[in-house]
Amino acid sequence: MTRDDVTQLVHDAKRKSGKSWKDIAAAINPSVSPICITAALLGQMTLEKAEAEKAATLLGLPADAALLLAEIPYRGSIPSMPPTDPLIYRFYELVMVYGTTFKELIQEEFGDGIMSAIDFDMTMERQPDPKGDRVKLNMSGKFLSYKRY
Amino acid sequence: MTRDDVTQLVHDAKRKSGKSWKDIAAAINPSVSPICITAALLGQMTLEKAEAEKAATLLGLPADAALLLAEIPYRGSIPSMPPTDPLIYRFYELVMVYGTTFKELIQEEFGDGIMSAIDFDMTMERQPDPKGDRVKLNMSGKFLSYKRY
Amino acid sequence: MTRDDVTQLVHDAKRKSGKSWKDIAAAINPSVSPICITAALLGQMTLEKAEAEKAATLLGLPADAALLLAEIPYRGSIPSMPPTDPLIYRFYELVMVYGTTFKELIQEEFGDGIMSAIDFDMTMERQPDPKGDRVKLNMSGKFLSYKRY
Amino acid sequence: MTRDDVTQLVHDAKRKSGKSWKDIAAAINPSVSPICITAALLGQMTLEKAEAEKAATLLGLPADAALLLAEIPYRGSIPSMPPTDPLIYRFYELVMVYGTTFKELIQEEFGDGIMSAIDFDMTMERQPDPKGDRVKLNMSGKFLSYKRY
Amino acid sequence: MTRDDVTQLVHDAKRKSGKSWKDIAAAINPSVSPICITAALLGQMTLEKAEAEKAATLLGLPADAALLLAEIPYRGSIPSMPPTDPLIYRFYELVMVYGTTFKELIQEEFGDGIMSAIDFDMTMERQPDPKGDRVKLNMSGKFLSYKRY
Amino acid sequence: MTRDDVTQLVHDAKRKSGKSWKDIAAAINPSVSPICITAALLGQMTLEKAEAEKAATLLGLPADAALLLAEIPYRGSIPSMPPTDPLIYRFYELVMVYGTTFKELIQEEFGDGIMSAIDFDMTMERQPDPKGDRVKLNMSGKFLSYKRY
Amino acid sequence: MTRDDVTQLVHDAKRKSGKSWKDIAAAINPSVSPICITAALLGQMTLEKAEAEKAATLLGLPADAALLLAEIPYRGSIPSMPPTDPLIYRFYELVMVYGTTFKELIQEEFGDGIMSAIDFDMTMERQPDPKGDRVKLNMSGKFLSYKRY
Amino acid sequence: MTRDDVTQLVHDAKRKSGKSWKDIAAAINPSVSPICITAALLGQMTLEKAEAEKAATLLGLPADAALLLAEIPYRGSIPSMPPTDPLIYRFYELVMVYGTTFKELIQEEFGDGIMSAIDFDMTMERQPDPKGDRVKLNMSGKFLSYKRY
Amino acid sequence: MTRDDVTQLVHDAKRKSGKSWKDIAAAINPSVSPICITAALLGQMTLEKAEAEKAATLLGLPADAALLLAEIPYRGSIPSMPPTDPLIYRFYELVMVYGTTFKELIQEEFGDGIMSAIDFDMTMERQPDPKGDRVKLNMSGKFLSYKRY
Amino acid sequence: MTRDDVTQLVHDAKRKSGKSWKDIAAAINPSVSPICITAALLGQMTLEKAEAEKAATLLGLPADAALLLAEIPYRGSIPSMPPTDPLIYRFYELVMVYGTTFKELIQEEFGDGIMSAIDFDMTMERQPDPKGDRVKLNMSGKFLSYKRY
Repeated sequence: MTRDDVTQLVHDAKRKSGKSWKDIAAAINPSVSPICITAALLGQMTLEKAEAEKAATLLGLPADAALLLAEIPYRGSIPSMPPTDPLIYRFYELVMVYGTTFKELIQEEFGDGIMSAIDFDMTMERQPDPKGDRVKLNMSGKFLSYKRY
Repeated sequence: MTRDDVTQLVHDAKRKSGKSWKDIAAAINPSVSPICITAALLGQMTLEKAEAEKAATLLGLPADAALLLAEIPYRGSIPSMPPTDPLIYRFYELVMVYGTTFKELIQEEFGDGIMSAIDFDMTMERQPDPKGDRVKLNMSGKFLSYKRY
Repeated sequence: MTRDDVTQLVHDAKRKSGKSWKDIAAAINPSVSPICITAALLGQMTLEKAEAEKAATLLGLPADAALLLAEIPYRGSIPSMPPTDPLIYRFYELVMVYGTTFKELIQEEFGDGIMSAIDFDMTMERQPDPKGDRVKLNMSGKFLSYKRY
Repeated sequence: MTRDDVTQLVHDAKRKSGKSWKDIAAAINPSVSPICITAALLGQMTLEKAEAEKAATLLGLPADAALLLAEIPYRGSIPSMPPTDPLIYRFYELVMVYGTTFKELIQEEFGDGIMSAIDFDMTMERQPDPKGDRVKLNMSGKFLSYKRY
Repeated sequence: MTRDDVTQLVHDAKRKSGKSWKDIAAAINPSVSPICITAALLGQMTLEKAEAEKAATLLGLPADAALLLAEIPYRGSIPSMPPTDPLIYRFYELVMVYGTTFKELIQEEFGDGIMSAIDFDMTMERQPDPKGDRVKLNMSGKFLSYKRY
Repeated sequence: MTRDDVTQLVHDAKRKSGKSWKDIAAAINPSVSPICITAALLGQMTLEKAEAEKAATLLGLPADAALLLAEIPYRGSIPSMPPTDPLIYRFYELVMVYGTTFKELIQEEFGDGIMSAIDFDMTMERQPDPKGDRVKLNMSGKFLSYKRY
Repeated sequence: MTRDDVTQLVHDAKRKSGKSWKDIAAAINPSVSPICITAALLGQMTLEKAEAEKAATLLGLPADAALLLAEIPYRGSIPSMPPTDPLIYRFYELVMVYGTTFKELIQEEFGDGIMSAIDFDMTMERQPDPKGDRVKLNMSGKFLSYKRY
Repeated sequence: MTRDDVTQLVHDAKRKSGKSWKDIAAAINPSVSPICITAALLGQMTLEKAEAEKAATLLGLPADAALLLAEIPYRGSIPSMPPTDPLIYRFYELVMVYGTTFKELIQEEFGDGIMSAIDFDMTMERQPDPKGDRVKLNMSGKFLSYKRY
Repeated sequence: MTRDDVTQLVHDAKRKSGKSWKDIAAAINPSVSPICITAALLGQMTLEKAEAEKAATLLGLPADAALLLAEIPYRGSIPSMPPTDPLIYRFYELVMVYGTTFKELIQEEFGDGIMSAIDFDMTMERQPDPKGDRVKLNMSGKFLSYKRY
Repeated sequence: MTRDDVTQLVHDAKRKSGKSWKDIAAAINPSVSPICITAALLGQMTLEKAEAEKAATLLGLPADAALLLAEIPYRGSIPSMPPTDPLIYRFYELVMVYGTTFKELIQEEFGDGIMSAIDFDMTMERQPDPKGDRVKLNMSGKFLSYKRY
């Protein structure tokens, strides 16, 4: 059994259960962001052992799947890059359009280094707007300075 | 003269002036986000005519450059994808790791559609943290529903 | 079961039934464009729950398939790009040949922004012509202005 | 001098003149679609000799450029595929999302063959809409049947 | 069942039967070129219903296969491009070496347009030669002029 | 000076002279196919020393160019593959669609081997046709058997 | 059954038998180079009917496999290029490093043409050396002159 | 000045001198293989200081070029892979067709390791043959065993 | 059975056993580096016959798997390059950032040649650090000089 | 002036000076690793202002170059990936062969996270060995744990 198999099993079980990711995530661990839990169920993050077992029970997954959900995955969720799906592509486009701007402004503020994609957190919420509601994403990553040695 | 030539001229002029993007942006138009202005100076957004002229004066750019800064650019700031620069690559990595999670959670909340990368705004700031300061990015994009017809 | 499996089941069922896409689409929902319905059956659009069930009944698809037809798909219908199939390639060629012309003329008329591929509709019809009938495609997409912020 | 040089000269001359594509096209030949003329000025179509000379006079291009504008170009206007520019990418996305639908519906109506991208014409206009104006594109291409022999 | 499955079934059946493509094609329809029939059996062309049934009987293919052989295929016979097989690669090489020569000489003779790959026919025969027999390919494609509009 | 420079010089000189490839080729050497001569002028074949000098005189090329036209070129005339130009792409498409058919029928007739793209010749002519004139290409390549050893 | 299936069966059978390629090749046909026979067993060359049957008996392959071993394969043995395996990559590297040198020296000696990869033979042997034994490869390919016509 | 500039200068000087690679190599250092010397002149190997100076004198290269010829180059002589030039492509094809055979037979003889492309030498000569002369290449590379540790 | 199947079996067995790579490696052969043994279990190195059998017993693998673990693999462990997994990507990034520095400094010290990736060994250990523990990798590869001949 | 121009100027100046990287680095700042300084001179790291000026004086670079050497570069030193140069390719190969082993063993020791390529240092030295001297590389990168949130 591979992690991709588990992701497929999760999709099948979720579809049949009619539950939302939000509810599934809350049931697995309400004190962790639903983004983290969902990403783990999609094969991109690691659940703790107890969470993985709760997930397996909740979704009716086989025992192997619980073990795999607690294992560090080989990351990379997009079938091929650039992403063909329009929702995901828009994020890719933002990197292409704003990439050099991010670089200039972050390094002007912090010096030579990067924003970590590991020591990183994120929230996502609906921002009501009379002209059409908006998706609001707040990202925060630790700045890491290039070490001189 | 191409837009890439203008971007190169901007870099040369900025380097010699010793000014920061923040100061340059504020001088061009303090009521517009420095992200927008910087992105325009890097060939990714459009300045208004008056802004472009102010930019040209400020940076000592030739008249042609002012015309080009007010022209809609052919967007795409990254020399080649995936980006080889580590700071920019981390954003690309976030798309690969969190892409399917974005898709599941945004569409669960909003239905079938996308977050616009056009009707979109963003802020970037330093988030002080005793364990090391963090880069904080807030993004907000209008949700666009797939039209049925 | 994946959405690709459903697409394959749809092709198999359609072939055996001898029905046309036009007839299938009309049976599923006559007030929605057959383009929309066909695209959904090919894994690119979402059917409403009742439509998905009608589709499943009509084509003899298993219950899972009905659930999947009402789920938002991971879009991207072409096995690999550029498309190897000549009919589809001609559209790709139009983008290569006319892409910059679209950009110049649309932005000259509307300003900086894009034609939405989400708030978008399309018709396709036969245009009789003594020198050989023609395919007529009418596309209409909302213009979205780049937001300044 | 290459056709790309001519395209660059056209962009430079147009920028300085302040004229629109529409006006330039009308001045070159008002009885031909501005799409055709603009595409030629962008290196994708061929002008007739007299048109090319009018274009060169109008835009102050050197004599070589007039010769080149009347020469059949090596087509392909996009610097690299997939297009990095959002406006053009949306058309590429339409091919990825609707490609198989085009194939199924056109071939269901016409039999085995393709829509020509050569014996092809197109109009583009603004479609006023209270919810936001729309880009309207009408395309028409001759259907070509696969020949059996 | 996919068209690729049918192609595989055809290869298996042909191998066991010991028949040649020439004989199979003649048995299916002697008045159509064996190139057309063979291409259809390899998933690149469409057989007529009666031909497909004859093919299925001749080769012992299941009923589904007959339906698929009469269906318009998603064309593209080469596993990946450039072709790794030397025989096919030589044709690819001819395009790379002679491509611009074809363009110059065909357009010098016919004006702006292309040689159709749809209204196209071809013969292949052995050309005896004392220095070693030669493969003779005669291709003929309708010239299509770029339409001005 | 590179061979690409020579090709560019040839294009410039031909454009100014108003001569056709056919006439230029005939003037250089009427007993060799204009396809060969044109291909050499486009950097894909080798002219003999006397021909190269005639070509240089005829087109007003510098002495270096004559030396280069008689030098064996690094072949490959297409800026990038797949070709973006529609005329050349149609040949590429023929390889994708008919590639496996070529392989099956040539090897059925000749055994294991290839059609040479080196010991190869070709003619191109206009085939008048009331339904629209056709491009006629006759190719002939020596069959080379795979050697067993 | 595909040729790849046969290659896999050959690997499985060889592994269980404990036999070497050298011994297998000698048993199939001692008067043909073990390189040829091994390449055929790996799906890159064609065995004669009697050899294929001997191979099938020797390795316990099913009857279909014998038929396939005598069929001309679709060549190309490397899963993807550039080769990821270090032994094979070194040959790829030799082409990158020495490719232009081969071209200059072979064409200086023989004129315009190529070394055939079809009318080609090769030996491989161990060359004892006190500083470490060496792999010795002798290749010989017929020179083919570009034909003028 | 880059090494590519030097390679271009070498080509220009050689062309004007009318000398062969063989003669140039012999004049630079007759006790080293002309393959080595030619490869160095093409930017793939390193000349010793005295050789580089002799080369510069012989070919009339500037002093910088002599320094560069004695510098270790960034190797990789082929403009893009796969090589578009037919002579070089045939070597690439040999790797694709015989790659796995090389691997099996070399490792069967020598164990786990590779043939070095660094401690490697080669000769190239004309092999007269009544059926057409042949190119004979003898390669010899030290076998390097994978180290266990 | 392929080597990839074995790697999958190893992962499944390890997961169920709850054992670490370190323990498994020590049980297979404590006098060989756990890096070597783990790499072999992941399909990149070769185990000796006795080790392979011990591995099969320890992990409950079928007899075929033991044979395959002692067979030289087709190397290349990354599903696709560049690696999508962040941990592995960082090593790829180091090559992109420091590649030319490695080249300059190694060749300045040792002359023209390479660091072998075959006669190569490596250790990996935890380096405690109050600011956060570090991964310490020590690599050592034999320097191989380019041979002149 | 771009950073690539500076790198080229550095190479030219170093070549003429006859100095080694080691000496240049020591002259610029003896208390920083020559790897860091060399990487900066090759456009991959940032020098401090005083160091950049010392570098410019030492190598006779223009004032602009000093400014650029103190600017954060757009990283990525390899012309194209995979690297064509054998010395650098061997590091790329190590990632392909050992990538999954690194992942398994680092994450087994440290948990879910990565080895930083930013808070990273490295030494390189000659390791004398009677069987041939070895290149010794010691790398140390901070382990960064994936943050849960």
